[in-house]
Amino acid sequence: MKVLVVGGTGTLGAPLVEALKAKHDVVVASHSRGGLKVDLADKASIARLFQATGRVGAVVCTAGSARFGALAALTDEDFEVSLENKLMGQVNLVRVGASSVADGGSFTLTSGVLSHSPMPGSAAISLVNAGLEGFARAASLELPRGIRINVVSPGWVTETLLAMKMDPSEGTPAAEVARSYVSSVEGSATGTVIDARKKA
Amino acid sequence: MKVLVVGGTGTLGAPLVEALKAKHDVVVASHSRGGLKVDLADKASIARLFQATGRVGAVVCTAGSARFGALAALTDEDFEVSLENKLMGQVNLVRVGASSVADGGSFTLTSGVLSHSPMPGSAAISLVNAGLEGFARAASLELPRGIRINVVSPGWVTETLLAMKMDPSEGTPAAEVARSYVSSVEGSATGTVIDARKKA
Repeated sequence: MKVLVVGGTGTLGAPLVEALKAKHDVVVASHSRGGLKVDLADKASIARLFQATGRVGAVVCTAGSARFGALAALTDEDFEVSLENKLMGQVNLVRVGASSVADGGSFTLTSGVLSHSPMPGSAAISLVNAGLEGFARAASLELPRGIRINVVSPGWVTETLLAMKMDPSEGTPAAEVARSYVSSVEGSATGTVIDARKKA
Repeated sequence: MKVLVVGGTGTLGAPLVEALKAKHDVVVASHSRGGLKVDLADKASIARLFQATGRVGAVVCTAGSARFGALAALTDEDFEVSLENKLMGQVNLVRVGASSVADGGSFTLTSGVLSHSPMPGSAAISLVNAGLEGFARAASLELPRGIRINVVSPGWVTETLLAMKMDPSEGTPAAEVARSYVSSVEGSATGTVIDARKKA
């Protein structure tokens, strides 16, 4: 099927695109790094993206930014950007894109384990990730024509830890995280949050 | 102790204020129905509220509005109001009010069971409730001076069902919901979501 991967040039997205290409016709979109251009914080930009793709079988989003910072240091703008981009950006991808998804197609969004396992500095990100999961559970009850929606919740990604010069042993390789997205696209689940961390 | 109840004139708030009065000095705030005035969607209004209360031992919020409506019918404004009011209003109560809470004091916010048990029409509310729970879990790791934060998650309230001429048998009386707030104020838990539904 035709699969749109928003964020398909990123750390999570690029290996996911490779994994999907084995069976699917993949269309990549990103904010600035190639493929079709989209700004998740701009609903009109999302509408233009779906005009460009036409009908798709699945939409996967591995994009969206939210701000990390101490609770006492997070600014109003930090919360606004996090809500507009990673949270409402992905919500609007569903609201705007649903009419472009084929019968029985799917959305797969990205949250993160900080939703339920927070750390100091994650107040805005934990809010965004948990809110997205709440939205997807609810939206799964109402999307038309058998369209499914799931959220993949990655933990630390090995490649990210390496780029940050941190210990990569607790991370999950992006190629392994990709399998959770593929299972959402190719499976039959809806309204679920898929824990994409390395299995012990 | 001095307990500020934002929304203390409402269906949940009024019986809670009565329950707290047995042991505490209660200060009521509401949007329009009496006590100190506060508009949760306006951060400056929240700052004025804490200037008026001075130091408090606990802050409870039973206020905040979010929009119910079919996913396909919810407007951008419905999401904006829900995010600004029930979600960021309560988040800002914590951000602005923390410096006015005594050492070892607490915040108790309100989400709702639609966070994890959605129904058709709850997409914006489920997002808001889940996001608030994610925020509180994270904020509990960072609030200074032993300040605690919990979220009470009510289900249907008997009085609300009666007002809507619906079957009240599945509801929890507001006076029983109040006990969950009191346990948060008087207990030692932090970072928790308290299910306030009637115990089977």
